[in-house]
Amino acid sequence: MKRPILYLLIFIPIAVTCLGQSPAIQRINPTNWWVGMKNPNLQLLVYGPNAGTLAYTITYPGVKLLKTHTVENPNYAFLDLTISSTAKPGTLRIVGKRGAQTINQSFELKVRDKAPKGQGVTAADFIYLAMPDRFANGDESNDKFADMADPNADRSNPFYRHGGDLAGAGQHLDYLKDLGVTAIWFTPVLENNQPLTNEGGAMRSAYHGYGFTDHYAVDRRLGGNDAYKAFVKKAHAMGLKVVQDAVYNHVGINHWFLKDAPMKSWLHQWPTYTNTSYKYQSVTDPYGAESDRRVMLDGWFVPFLPDLNQSNPFVANFLIQHAIWSVENFGVDAWRVDTYMYNDQPFMNRCNQALMDEYPKIHIFGESWVNNVVDQAYYTRNKIDFAFKSNQPGGLDFVVYTAMLDALKQKFSWDDGVNRFYQALAQDAVYQDPSTLVTFLDNHDTDRYLSVIGDDFDKYKIGLTWLLTTRGIPSMYYGTEILMKNFKDPSDAEVRRDFPGGFPGDKENKFETSGRNDREKAAFQFVRKLATYRRDNPVMHTGKLMQFLPQDGTYVYFRYDGNKTVMVATNTNDKEISLDTVRFTERMKGFSSARNVLTDEVIQDLKLIKLPAKTALVLELAK
Amino acid sequence: MKRPILYLLIFIPIAVTCLGQSPAIQRINPTNWWVGMKNPNLQLLVYGPNAGTLAYTITYPGVKLLKTHTVENPNYAFLDLTISSTAKPGTLRIVGKRGAQTINQSFELKVRDKAPKGQGVTAADFIYLAMPDRFANGDESNDKFADMADPNADRSNPFYRHGGDLAGAGQHLDYLKDLGVTAIWFTPVLENNQPLTNEGGAMRSAYHGYGFTDHYAVDRRLGGNDAYKAFVKKAHAMGLKVVQDAVYNHVGINHWFLKDAPMKSWLHQWPTYTNTSYKYQSVTDPYGAESDRRVMLDGWFVPFLPDLNQSNPFVANFLIQHAIWSVENFGVDAWRVDTYMYNDQPFMNRCNQALMDEYPKIHIFGESWVNNVVDQAYYTRNKIDFAFKSNQPGGLDFVVYTAMLDALKQKFSWDDGVNRFYQALAQDAVYQDPSTLVTFLDNHDTDRYLSVIGDDFDKYKIGLTWLLTTRGIPSMYYGTEILMKNFKDPSDAEVRRDFPGGFPGDKENKFETSGRNDREKAAFQFVRKLATYRRDNPVMHTGKLMQFLPQDGTYVYFRYDGNKTVMVATNTNDKEISLDTVRFTERMKGFSSARNVLTDEVIQDLKLIKLPAKTALVLELAK
Repeated sequence: MKRPILYLLIFIPIAVTCLGQSPAIQRINPTNWWVGMKNPNLQLLVYGPNAGTLAYTITYPGVKLLKTHTVENPNYAFLDLTISSTAKPGTLRIVGKRGAQTINQSFELKVRDKAPKGQGVTAADFIYLAMPDRFANGDESNDKFADMADPNADRSNPFYRHGGDLAGAGQHLDYLKDLGVTAIWFTPVLENNQPLTNEGGAMRSAYHGYGFTDHYAVDRRLGGNDAYKAFVKKAHAMGLKVVQDAVYNHVGINHWFLKDAPMKSWLHQWPTYTNTSYKYQSVTDPYGAESDRRVMLDGWFVPFLPDLNQSNPFVANFLIQHAIWSVENFGVDAWRVDTYMYNDQPFMNRCNQALMDEYPKIHIFGESWVNNVVDQAYYTRNKIDFAFKSNQPGGLDFVVYTAMLDALKQKFSWDDGVNRFYQALAQDAVYQDPSTLVTFLDNHDTDRYLSVIGDDFDKYKIGLTWLLTTRGIPSMYYGTEILMKNFKDPSDAEVRRDFPGGFPGDKENKFETSGRNDREKAAFQFVRKLATYRRDNPVMHTGKLMQFLPQDGTYVYFRYDGNKTVMVATNTNDKEISLDTVRFTERMKGFSSARNVLTDEVIQDLKLIKLPAKTALVLELAK
Repeated sequence: MKRPILYLLIFIPIAVTCLGQSPAIQRINPTNWWVGMKNPNLQLLVYGPNAGTLAYTITYPGVKLLKTHTVENPNYAFLDLTISSTAKPGTLRIVGKRGAQTINQSFELKVRDKAPKGQGVTAADFIYLAMPDRFANGDESNDKFADMADPNADRSNPFYRHGGDLAGAGQHLDYLKDLGVTAIWFTPVLENNQPLTNEGGAMRSAYHGYGFTDHYAVDRRLGGNDAYKAFVKKAHAMGLKVVQDAVYNHVGINHWFLKDAPMKSWLHQWPTYTNTSYKYQSVTDPYGAESDRRVMLDGWFVPFLPDLNQSNPFVANFLIQHAIWSVENFGVDAWRVDTYMYNDQPFMNRCNQALMDEYPKIHIFGESWVNNVVDQAYYTRNKIDFAFKSNQPGGLDFVVYTAMLDALKQKFSWDDGVNRFYQALAQDAVYQDPSTLVTFLDNHDTDRYLSVIGDDFDKYKIGLTWLLTTRGIPSMYYGTEILMKNFKDPSDAEVRRDFPGGFPGDKENKFETSGRNDREKAAFQFVRKLATYRRDNPVMHTGKLMQFLPQDGTYVYFRYDGNKTVMVATNTNDKEISLDTVRFTERMKGFSSARNVLTDEVIQDLKLIKLPAKTALVLELAK
């Protein structure tokens, strides 16, 4: 999530419950669990009027109730269970007693299915980021619900729900597969039962999904839990992976547990409303003030997204168990973490570790929107001796994102132009494994790539070539392949427009070749050709990278392993250049010809390579 | 040294000597040594016609000749000696025999004097950088020598020698002491018997001192070895330290040993002239090409400064012993290393270690002109797990240099203006001890500070306040205190103008208060007041630093220890601000008033502090 503009002042109450009211259990989170998990511990959040006043017992073979925690709000109990490795699947009964009254609540312990889950994403993947409300509408019956806080759907209004859903996305998996995509990342799918508000002319909508109101329900307007499960199953059947977008830092102000919060410390509370400073430097700064750190970490992201207090162990357990539950229940493969650096970092390590313990191949990549490698390194496994050591296996690479755009926007000079990209990668020594970082050219929070580079199709191809051939796990924002563009001004909705052809009644259908104009066809084919080549050639995943100093507006690097050597030669100049390759002997020795991966043209003489103006060639070298 | 513009092509010959010529010894380097050094080993370079064809013996109690090395050029021998801890001072005879002929050469083993040496510089110091040729002329008889490669001296020509010398500098130590300076760093004082040439309109002069032609002779035009020794002695007597400027990477093309080089591998030789790329990224880049690294490290800095091959053990020994000899002979306290990152880094570690072994308190700070903290950290003791670990205790802080100037030049915004300075310091976690870095606002290779900030006296005071109150060892370029200014365009000489009053016949004498105009008086007094306060208050040396997030164009930090708390509050805005100090409670709690260190004014109420437009207040807090 990006930094918003407006602040508001709100308070979160703890409701006063009459102790005389009859106890009841209305919710248990997680909503179910499984036998056979590596971690035998489970903490159930039990909610209902006076649920915290009951004495609980559980009688089920292999399951022990270790402790019942009561908290400030008598409507909550937290039950610590252990589930032994010998426990069988089934329905256990949670019995709560108070005086003569007995409450019985069933809770299911499922058998773990054998479907793929937590498969991870690696540099062998190509991730496609879509916003489900804006991608494709497969079920018009779920576009809106009168009982929800925002009961509207209207495609003519950029801030309203547009009706896109998981069923719609599922109908276009063949399109993505054909494009060369191997993993789909949606902006969050969990329920966002948030109102649409107008704050002094600034619309606050939740179609983006970052304000959860129930962790255990996928938004009905996207199709609910069943649709998500079906989507993942279909994707897996086609060999595509699914990345879930997680939000730990905050929830929507309409989250059910905030109507009657368990305790004051459930959220970061301030004497008066305090927004985060968004100034991440205060966290890593050895001279930073504790007060600045607190505001950065514990200040609220925006007034309508209350900030969870992850140093509260009940909150931490709630979030960690939800993460595990999501992977196990839906079978997702990787985990993108929103506003990563705003979270309590020891909590993040615990949560990451819990996921990695259950799913050793899972990949986790958080969003830490920073302007330098030191701060970026702090939030992933790194080689800097910081007082705090992150265990995050990946991360979104904002440094390379900025550098690639600078490289395309700036004129070549001593440190500028393509030198920016080169210099960003040259600092990779700070990371334990830079190939685990997720690279991108834009996303739902930024101006769209094509607009940033001045709608220049030559530059468009250069940037995508870099994205798909340099180190890291490439990700692409939906519509880039059909030249969707726009700036965020006047609103974020401008860069979140509907995918043409994804919605009933669309006049154009760009999912089909016939719906694309010539330029769009060329763009789609360009991405497809390169993504397919990448997908099919391990040298592009695990091959080493060697880059040479940019000179005279050219920039040359190689991906190579024992089997293949691929040369990527960029000319950022406005005129053709004849590239003398003697400087690259270290990598080109022994090769006598090359195949242009994009055109299949063969180059017979490698001594001087013709680089057309504003072009990046991808050449597979041959003996 | 900075990056120059022009390249030339040269070759260094190894002279052909007739083996029939009678052997002779013309030079031995080092020119003497001492008993009682921690390292018992010494390698003598012996030079003369057929000196390499002699069989050497040394008979002296406690001294052993372990081995005589002969090399390609028969005019050189390298003698490996050990000097035991029991050896007495005296003159030993080096005897060389060839057939019937015997050569006797005396070599002095001195007693180590008790004078201070290798005292180091720390954050308690304030370094003044001067260019001796341009600072003060104390001896007109040594301005020029007809037998030198550049026989001219003419103050009307910016490229000629101007006659400044060590005697002149020595006459102004009281001036520097009064200013609050504690250490003097001269651009190199060793002989630069280089010609003045005009290369296509670009003048190549050596008054700056970076092209050594004899390591064991201080330039005669500066007064020679005796004048340097006298200068250091006088400085020490006044409690001032001396920093020597070392150059390991290259020598002047007129260096005596290049007229008849010991061997081809004495220098980095290339098939055709190859300049360094100056692209340091290729060294630290995990994806860097070996060929790029070689060009960066082994390419020549400029054609007239041949590049020494420090991986040649004879070269390495020569340079390391010269470093030790300089400290022992002249008594210098710290060591500034030119073009640090162009040197072979394992050699640099060996050389640093040798100095630190003999002089445990010595400080070493190299020049690595980089644009980012990762590359800067690589060349000093750092906390990044690089494959190569530097042992350099300090370094010149180019990152903070750039950041301070950006902070003064740019308008305040999210990441710009004073945020630049704040953000640069916030990345200090990469260094083992950032307080050992030497900070600066300009030097002999850059535009002068006052010109860079638009001749703005308010900004001038802000930048100097930061320099003298933030972490690190501050250094100031000569003349800054009397508002010398200029850009390097049209030539470097513009920023190396003569100090007014330092030369016979000067109409103005700015060493004296009476010679300064009102603005210059104010500047001098400003630096003096702050430098004196810094000098006299340990909190400014070893006190912790805490900085708060810049807000609304203000930037506040504290230096504090158990005894004192000093607040530095900067307002970079064009209008006065009333600073609410509640945000700084962490550091201000318990204090009720403050003394303005610059004006001695007392502030009785700390709740709201009036910050005039474009001002940095330095406030010593009181209970």
